[in-house]
Amino acid sequence: MKEFKTIEVKRSIFEDNDADAGRLRKELKEEGTFLLNLMSSPGAGKTATLKRTIEALKDEFRIGVMEADIDSDVDARAISETGVRAIQIHTGGMCHLDADMTRQGIREFGTKDLELVVLENVGNLVCPAEFDTGSTKNAMILSVPEGDDKPLKYPLMFSICDVVLINKCDTLSVFDDFSKEAVKERILKLNPKAEVIYISAKTGEGFEEWLRWLRKEIREYRM
Amino acid sequence: MKEFKTIEVKRSIFEDNDADAGRLRKELKEEGTFLLNLMSSPGAGKTATLKRTIEALKDEFRIGVMEADIDSDVDARAISETGVRAIQIHTGGMCHLDADMTRQGIREFGTKDLELVVLENVGNLVCPAEFDTGSTKNAMILSVPEGDDKPLKYPLMFSICDVVLINKCDTLSVFDDFSKEAVKERILKLNPKAEVIYISAKTGEGFEEWLRWLRKEIREYRM
Repeated sequence: MKEFKTIEVKRSIFEDNDADAGRLRKELKEEGTFLLNLMSSPGAGKTATLKRTIEALKDEFRIGVMEADIDSDVDARAISETGVRAIQIHTGGMCHLDADMTRQGIREFGTKDLELVVLENVGNLVCPAEFDTGSTKNAMILSVPEGDDKPLKYPLMFSICDVVLINKCDTLSVFDDFSKEAVKERILKLNPKAEVIYISAKTGEGFEEWLRWLRKEIREYRM
Repeated sequence: MKEFKTIEVKRSIFEDNDADAGRLRKELKEEGTFLLNLMSSPGAGKTATLKRTIEALKDEFRIGVMEADIDSDVDARAISETGVRAIQIHTGGMCHLDADMTRQGIREFGTKDLELVVLENVGNLVCPAEFDTGSTKNAMILSVPEGDDKPLKYPLMFSICDVVLINKCDTLSVFDDFSKEAVKERILKLNPKAEVIYISAKTGEGFEEWLRWLRKEIREYRM
């Protein structure tokens, strides 16, 4: 049995996405809903990280997840198994979500009673960085197998994120040309305020630090 | 010393990219230049695969490489070390190349004397699939760490490629939830004519088969 709804969002009619994102952020603040926009390349581990995060926090916060994909509902199915509310958003071929597409998801989902909503954006290091979704905070995942040169090649994404999770750290011995120090230095050069946290969604390494960051952000937002 | 030129391409003025791609394909055919459009997610191993491919083929064919990136010249620098001609294309923030942007690169590069030109597209599994570049053949790389569910989530990319290289096969024992059979089945369901080849750009595994495919395609094209 399918435990989640799928909605098809339409391209925004607003020309000024930044202004619209600001409006959505204000609406969410009034409701007390913290919206985390989670971005990465395909296969960096967004869904696995999210599943482990939900398991740790689901007794503390009322959580909902919006899974954006061009097609398929693989991820919404995985998330709904954790017991939290999930919705699948189909972007109709679009490579990102803008603020109005996010609002369509939020309204259809009904987030008034939720404290934390995670928007799992389309797997793409380029386009989602260009569109403010109206989220409270932006998070991204870079996985070790992708290489430590990615901040040089996709600088905008690293510039707009509040937190960068370096995932699959359990494979550092296999990908031995990946330098934890070099990647952090490159990220901080682009974005000195970014929080850089090394994790493994498989083993749980680093989750204590990541969860500490997320809890603190949610609590300060809802005060 | 910098061994390659960098050019900034402008967004196409043509509304009908498909027609323009057809024109470019015809121009290249007249010159006898085989254009391979190589696509993947960020970090799947395009540059590493290309370096090994060039080492194997550079005495057989006159090769040139066009490296498309939003920013940086990391890849063009790596390729120019192999001794073949390289050019860096900056897309000015654009997440893909269309046919006219490719033509700007081709003309600036000067490809008349080249037999094989590889266009390393922007790292992105979404947008490059939507724009025909005018290439002779489309190739993509999916790496094992990305997961075997990617054909379900990015179906268009897998549908338009003539060959799909499954890279980083040397890490299959680490990523033991990746099924070689499942990924191939999912690809062939979308694209029954696709050639699926398992490789490792690190160890050289599978390169015999990949090079056999590429040699055959180039020779048939230039007959």
